[in-house]
Amino acid sequence: MRPSLVRELLKRATSSNIIPFAGGLPNPAFFPNEDLAAASDAVLRRDGASVLQYAQSEGYPPLREWISARYKQRFGVDIPLDQVIITSGSQQGLDLIGKVFIEEGQTVAIERPGYQGMIHALSVYQPRFVGVTLNEDGLDLADLQRVLEAENPKLLFTCPNYQNPSGITYTAANRAAVAAVMAQHNTMLIEDDPYSELGFTGKHAPTFRALLPEQCVALGSFSKITSPGMRLGWLIAPKSVMERFVIAKQATDMHTSNFSQRVLFEYLTANPIEAHIERIQGAYAAQCAAMLRAMEKYFPPGVTWTKPDGGMFVWATLPPEADSVAILDAAIDAGVTFLPGPTFYTDGGGRNQMRLSYSQQNEARIEEGIQRLAAVIVRHLDGPVQ
Amino acid sequence: MRPSLVRELLKRATSSNIIPFAGGLPNPAFFPNEDLAAASDAVLRRDGASVLQYAQSEGYPPLREWISARYKQRFGVDIPLDQVIITSGSQQGLDLIGKVFIEEGQTVAIERPGYQGMIHALSVYQPRFVGVTLNEDGLDLADLQRVLEAENPKLLFTCPNYQNPSGITYTAANRAAVAAVMAQHNTMLIEDDPYSELGFTGKHAPTFRALLPEQCVALGSFSKITSPGMRLGWLIAPKSVMERFVIAKQATDMHTSNFSQRVLFEYLTANPIEAHIERIQGAYAAQCAAMLRAMEKYFPPGVTWTKPDGGMFVWATLPPEADSVAILDAAIDAGVTFLPGPTFYTDGGGRNQMRLSYSQQNEARIEEGIQRLAAVIVRHLDGPVQ
Repeated sequence: MRPSLVRELLKRATSSNIIPFAGGLPNPAFFPNEDLAAASDAVLRRDGASVLQYAQSEGYPPLREWISARYKQRFGVDIPLDQVIITSGSQQGLDLIGKVFIEEGQTVAIERPGYQGMIHALSVYQPRFVGVTLNEDGLDLADLQRVLEAENPKLLFTCPNYQNPSGITYTAANRAAVAAVMAQHNTMLIEDDPYSELGFTGKHAPTFRALLPEQCVALGSFSKITSPGMRLGWLIAPKSVMERFVIAKQATDMHTSNFSQRVLFEYLTANPIEAHIERIQGAYAAQCAAMLRAMEKYFPPGVTWTKPDGGMFVWATLPPEADSVAILDAAIDAGVTFLPGPTFYTDGGGRNQMRLSYSQQNEARIEEGIQRLAAVIVRHLDGPVQ
Repeated sequence: MRPSLVRELLKRATSSNIIPFAGGLPNPAFFPNEDLAAASDAVLRRDGASVLQYAQSEGYPPLREWISARYKQRFGVDIPLDQVIITSGSQQGLDLIGKVFIEEGQTVAIERPGYQGMIHALSVYQPRFVGVTLNEDGLDLADLQRVLEAENPKLLFTCPNYQNPSGITYTAANRAAVAAVMAQHNTMLIEDDPYSELGFTGKHAPTFRALLPEQCVALGSFSKITSPGMRLGWLIAPKSVMERFVIAKQATDMHTSNFSQRVLFEYLTANPIEAHIERIQGAYAAQCAAMLRAMEKYFPPGVTWTKPDGGMFVWATLPPEADSVAILDAAIDAGVTFLPGPTFYTDGGGRNQMRLSYSQQNEARIEEGIQRLAAVIVRHLDGPVQ
């Protein structure tokens, strides 16, 4: 557990003139302030004695039912209520997975690149990380097979939709092939899916929960569709490991804020949530398109990037000699931030890569930010090799 | 991590006719429903974009300042803002302590008896527990000295005010003596103090944070004075270990519900909190007195119990042949519950002891519950030895 160099660099980026592509923050324009105020008022006045009291470690049953019904509606999969736990954000799901599954020194397979908050959460439990190559269509099957056979990892972490950091989505064919390989091994698949509802195309591939019902722990989050500040997510696990998760949750913090859970549930049932989600999807699709257009226009030759179908992130790869940490240092002075590639690797990779988030800014600011960043990249690539 | 026998027994205790002395639940009569509804409305409408966004791992700075000011007011001690972290209840403080300090197999000293939620939270990190005897005036100094010298524990857990489960409060003299012994060793003292504000006498002894500023991690909670359902507590640590706690908190759940924090802070500043706390203190003092009177009146000879100065619990000791788990089994049928002694020991102690909570019931129900329990105890002691 060490503070990162990147975190220190970003502490300098406090000017209001900075255009931030670094953080994975939702656009606050879509926070339902007024509707949550009404929901809060309703539950506290109607039912304060139970809203404010200690509650079940598993979470508020109607909210768990809502989540189960949403999986049925979106994926056609049946998830029993007693296989759903409310967590304090998807991040806490990662911590609970560490608590339940990882003993010091055990091998855990992760996507390469992989989400830095997952690496951070699991590092507490001191596993040995091994990477599986991520291609544009999902996990590299030969590499997955090799890692499963050679390393017999306890867990395989995936973020199959609009992956953090790459923006890549596993195709339906890739998921089916991954599931077929996994079914031959004892490794538990973790499906971390916080961006699930942020698709741009109206289509989505099946959840791994449907493909590997007894071999998948699925994590989700309300952070991207309502509010990250409320810290509300969920964990769905097979019956065989559920009791261990409930006991771990109780030991960790008794239960997630019952107040937040009850307010969210009231909000979800009193408002047209589909329309709200579609508004966010539409805005992020436009912001993403603006970023891709600006990259096309301003980035120098030799830089490539992903074309996301949803989520919040574009992943850019610079020529091999580029150093994204040095570029960030210069970019902060030029008024723009991003997250350098090495943040997302446990093995020193990603030196010439960067994650760019389009979620927080309007289209004009996105173009301006990419223009600033392009100038820094051009100077960096023209300068002496770092 | 195993579900306890007692938990299974208590699952039978669902009838509304049951008088519950088992749980440590605050009396919902004192939840400030209406004032929290007003606070929630105010912060969401005024400042929703920041209330609902991701926030600092350390917690909302004005709430941390409020806690620091409260320590200054109550204990005359100065606590810098950057030594306070907001946690998801005091329970999460215990989990973070496990994350930061405990390696598998390390020795941790605990009060004997000690809080079962602490034992549960730390067990995840697989320490070796060793007990220190608790006397009516605080820790047994000779036993403490012996344990520190023989076992060199990493941590010493204390709950010095209205201890859970015993209701015992360490005297000022005992605290000073404990601090003097601790200063000769490298063991970190943990002061878990969730009941701090629930005193009946208007007096309180110094916090260990004042006696051992560089060797004490102090935990506190808003659960007993506002709402446990909001899951809000705090952790105060010396500067030397603070960064590790912040990193552990971030890895665990990013931060505590910002929504809950902001609503609580608005409530604390907009309402007369002293008067609210005094109302709870007065009610619990009356409820405690009612329980002690009823025990005096109905309990058979040979049973002794503590006389708390605050908090929520009375601790009773039955004759050595008594079996409190068997008594609970019969008590549920008679319409009353409590927590059996073995729940609070890691070494098989407490067979003839029980924790009785007076926080949830009015005086008449308390008398009725003690009368029911007394009849079960009398039958148990008259019956064949279990």
